[in-house]
Amino acid sequence: MAEPQFERLALIGIGLIGSSLARAVRRDGIAREIAIATRSQATLDRARELGLGDFYSTDPAEAASNADLVILCVPVGACGAVAEQISGSLKPGAIVSDVGSVKGSVVRQIAPHLPQGVHLVAAHPVAGTEYSGPDSGFATLFQGRWCILTPQADTVPDAVARLRAFWEACGSNVEVMTPEHHDLVLAITSHVPHLIAYNIVGTADDLESVTQSEVIKFSAGGFRDFTRIAASDPTMWRDVFLHNKDAVLETLGRFSEDLSALQRAIRWGEGDTLFELFTRTRAIRRSIIDMGQETTSANFGRDAQGGEDSGSKR
Amino acid sequence: MAEPQFERLALIGIGLIGSSLARAVRRDGIAREIAIATRSQATLDRARELGLGDFYSTDPAEAASNADLVILCVPVGACGAVAEQISGSLKPGAIVSDVGSVKGSVVRQIAPHLPQGVHLVAAHPVAGTEYSGPDSGFATLFQGRWCILTPQADTVPDAVARLRAFWEACGSNVEVMTPEHHDLVLAITSHVPHLIAYNIVGTADDLESVTQSEVIKFSAGGFRDFTRIAASDPTMWRDVFLHNKDAVLETLGRFSEDLSALQRAIRWGEGDTLFELFTRTRAIRRSIIDMGQETTSANFGRDAQGGEDSGSKR
Repeated sequence: MAEPQFERLALIGIGLIGSSLARAVRRDGIAREIAIATRSQATLDRARELGLGDFYSTDPAEAASNADLVILCVPVGACGAVAEQISGSLKPGAIVSDVGSVKGSVVRQIAPHLPQGVHLVAAHPVAGTEYSGPDSGFATLFQGRWCILTPQADTVPDAVARLRAFWEACGSNVEVMTPEHHDLVLAITSHVPHLIAYNIVGTADDLESVTQSEVIKFSAGGFRDFTRIAASDPTMWRDVFLHNKDAVLETLGRFSEDLSALQRAIRWGEGDTLFELFTRTRAIRRSIIDMGQETTSANFGRDAQGGEDSGSKR
Repeated sequence: MAEPQFERLALIGIGLIGSSLARAVRRDGIAREIAIATRSQATLDRARELGLGDFYSTDPAEAASNADLVILCVPVGACGAVAEQISGSLKPGAIVSDVGSVKGSVVRQIAPHLPQGVHLVAAHPVAGTEYSGPDSGFATLFQGRWCILTPQADTVPDAVARLRAFWEACGSNVEVMTPEHHDLVLAITSHVPHLIAYNIVGTADDLESVTQSEVIKFSAGGFRDFTRIAASDPTMWRDVFLHNKDAVLETLGRFSEDLSALQRAIRWGEGDTLFELFTRTRAIRRSIIDMGQETTSANFGRDAQGGEDSGSKR
């Protein structure tokens, strides 16, 4: 095992992402010591039972003191308050980062609270599952996934390099961009997809002409795919939409415009328009598979028998 | 192995569904003989190489002659033409069925061509993958999935019972409903989900502010889930939308209305509205899992390591 990159890592929040980080860091000795803080005593006790850290507190300031790297693993809307709580105990030269799915707002929330000599490098590991809480994390969550760093123009390059090395040690590929561009990219690759998944599941739940039992029974026709991301953590996602409002509304506008065009094509029986789109979209999945970001198994391999049996070719 | 339920099964079309049926029927001896017809000589040759049947022809009439059960496994839009082709060679007492995702249109297309004494029992196995063609089928595709039969008021009950037994032997649960109700149910559980998946993938492909390479790289944020069903067979899906137009447009109207409300909630910062919906949708996935229609593994189990490691609890 290599020398630890950091003496003390503080994780503020120990849900899916925080607990996955703790497991990856521990497995590979990336930090010598892990301090864990979370607001809820029950969650903290669970983290302790799971042996995720070396030091536990319900006070983020206590966990952050003496840490070389502090990572906020809390919902996007809580970042400002946490930054304010820890600001007095941050040690000079420490790096403060986060894992939020929105970056512009997070930087605006955290930056004002950081003392001179503390480096803010906001980050977003583009990885997750539909489960939440300290039990749901696993050490390989970041393996082969991308982590986006969004330093500001005046961020010290060495701090960015150290955080990059940290995420690479956790198994991620790292890319650097501005917070603003990040928020545009994620609006289409993550935020709007979540919104429309939540929305279609809600629409199905509200129909009078089709019973809920029918929706559930016949969900293998496509609907069940959407329920996975519509089962994601409600607090986290509420905050994402409230904090990336502009990019989400802009992207949603494009989505709705395109959907109206499709709707019109259906109404007027324009089969060629539909066929052309459906052919183009097939190629995009192929690229995602080729880039190692998706499985080639049929039905995501969810039905292991089917996956093996099918040969998964087309 | 039990006695065959049918002497001769004719499969007209040998793609994902047709070839999965051939494999299931052969595995369990559900029919004594399988006759396969498909328009393309290359596909027919491939079916022969795979040993899917006992008799092969590019002429559906030839395959259908002497069959006790004829199943059309062609795109919904082709059902009328195929029914016309085979009508002269159907034997008295034969059952004609299909596997299309739309039922009202299929019944209207097929019924006029069937001679007296031939029974039409339209059917829809709610199962599939994003792959197509004879190589993509597998015998367990229908295992534990629902198959919907949509007989008409004057359909002979014995024909319905025999087709039910056939699908149960293939591993399916069977439900019976009217073609009209089927088309409403599938609009929300399958057709509109496919349409919005195709649409978001198209929107992403068209953005100027985000590159295609970025969309692909960061697709693990949620987008990649949608690309699976947006990789489904273009011809099949074009036909579905053209042939279930009314129910799709009606359901799409509800979806868009709900989406506008969500959009407004985001614009005005109504976090409670978002949180309430996101909590409700979580419960629906739980029901789908409890009904055995979805895996409990995180990320559909697509990352086997993650799935095992995570404990998959929340």
